[in-house]
Amino acid sequence: MKEITSLTNETIKLYASLNNKKEREEHHLFIVDGDHLVLEAYKHHCLEAVLFTDYLPQELKDYPNLIKVTDGIMAKISNVVDPKNIIGICKYKEQVLPSGATHLIALDGVQDPGNGGTILRSALAFGYQGLLLSNDSFDIYNTKFIRSTMGAFFALPIIRGDLVKLLLALKTNHKIIVADLVDEAKPLASCKFAEPLVIVVGNEGRGPTRAIRTLADEIVIIPISNNIDSLNVGVAASIIMNYFSNI
Amino acid sequence: MKEITSLTNETIKLYASLNNKKEREEHHLFIVDGDHLVLEAYKHHCLEAVLFTDYLPQELKDYPNLIKVTDGIMAKISNVVDPKNIIGICKYKEQVLPSGATHLIALDGVQDPGNGGTILRSALAFGYQGLLLSNDSFDIYNTKFIRSTMGAFFALPIIRGDLVKLLLALKTNHKIIVADLVDEAKPLASCKFAEPLVIVVGNEGRGPTRAIRTLADEIVIIPISNNIDSLNVGVAASIIMNYFSNI
Repeated sequence: MKEITSLTNETIKLYASLNNKKEREEHHLFIVDGDHLVLEAYKHHCLEAVLFTDYLPQELKDYPNLIKVTDGIMAKISNVVDPKNIIGICKYKEQVLPSGATHLIALDGVQDPGNGGTILRSALAFGYQGLLLSNDSFDIYNTKFIRSTMGAFFALPIIRGDLVKLLLALKTNHKIIVADLVDEAKPLASCKFAEPLVIVVGNEGRGPTRAIRTLADEIVIIPISNNIDSLNVGVAASIIMNYFSNI
Repeated sequence: MKEITSLTNETIKLYASLNNKKEREEHHLFIVDGDHLVLEAYKHHCLEAVLFTDYLPQELKDYPNLIKVTDGIMAKISNVVDPKNIIGICKYKEQVLPSGATHLIALDGVQDPGNGGTILRSALAFGYQGLLLSNDSFDIYNTKFIRSTMGAFFALPIIRGDLVKLLLALKTNHKIIVADLVDEAKPLASCKFAEPLVIVVGNEGRGPTRAIRTLADEIVIIPISNNIDSLNVGVAASIIMNYFSNI
């Protein structure tokens, strides 16, 4: 077990820099906070190093790259205030959709990593096998996203790319179901179950883009009151995923 | 129209202090950010004053208590970074359940104001008529809660109190439906519609308390995969409210 006490240690400076997206992308490393996420990363062979001050979960006692650090170093790297904190430095995941995936969720320009995390958590809960993400959506190595997935981050593949092209490639086999608030949308409760399928939800403000809407086999709406504009996107995606549940 | 330029003006000091819960409770005043929420507050007669720098929505031009302030004052009071920002200082609402309410949602110890806001937004969307809240839940005048309700805050009554007593009083007339992950819970899809009803969801970590569970006419579960512990509480509440939708 190593021990580092200097805030200016090069390894510590590198790890702290991973709070910055540019540095994450250069080093292909990211940070997770707390024993639950560190253990999930360990289980999924994503760990590069584990930093702790006092507390260490039993399962990690024999992990080869343990680094004992000071409270000051912990505070420099983590934005979670908790003396029992533990940090994992993780390698970027290989993200591959399983062949034969029958239930997928796609995000078209979703901005808030917390909404994204809620959606991935629900996706795993309802038996979905992967998440697709347009290039203009949030960064998937953002700490807030990873934390709000509650471990689903390590269990499901997340494919970022040109969403129109990704959906076009899937459309030969999958039904594309787009959530939108337009007049021609079909109330969810009247939609028949059809799989394999991809459910698509759009940006928090503007909904899905026109290019995505033209790819839809079905446009669905969750009926709501006239007294409010829309549902939270994480709620809307979760309700539709639950309706087409794979559990 | 007044104009204030001094950061040490007594009115400004009072308004800035409202970011603190203790001060809110003493003065029975709270802060809302952005033109959407300020206009909702105006529509619901909750406004005490409106602070702005340059931009002012047309609807507020004749509002009697407009105060033009500097960017520095705006930054001192608001935690939203936006040059177009506008702030409403609002009076605490009278919170009264409508008689004959058929659809209510209750939160037992929910901690995160963002989760609470998502739930209130969904409640309004699905035609629910009020929110009940245990004393150990989040503060409803917290800015993050109000912002995430997307205006539902002003449209629906929110009753905070001893949740066991509140539910006991309703139980003579209403079915109490409690969401929980226990073995004896009934899958949501097999529950029959029954109204008037109150749906209860519990704390993010521990779920509903035993005292609340003993009041349940029905304990329901949303079936999920074994690969994850639970759904986000805002998602779970929204799925159940949508299942028993009043729209």
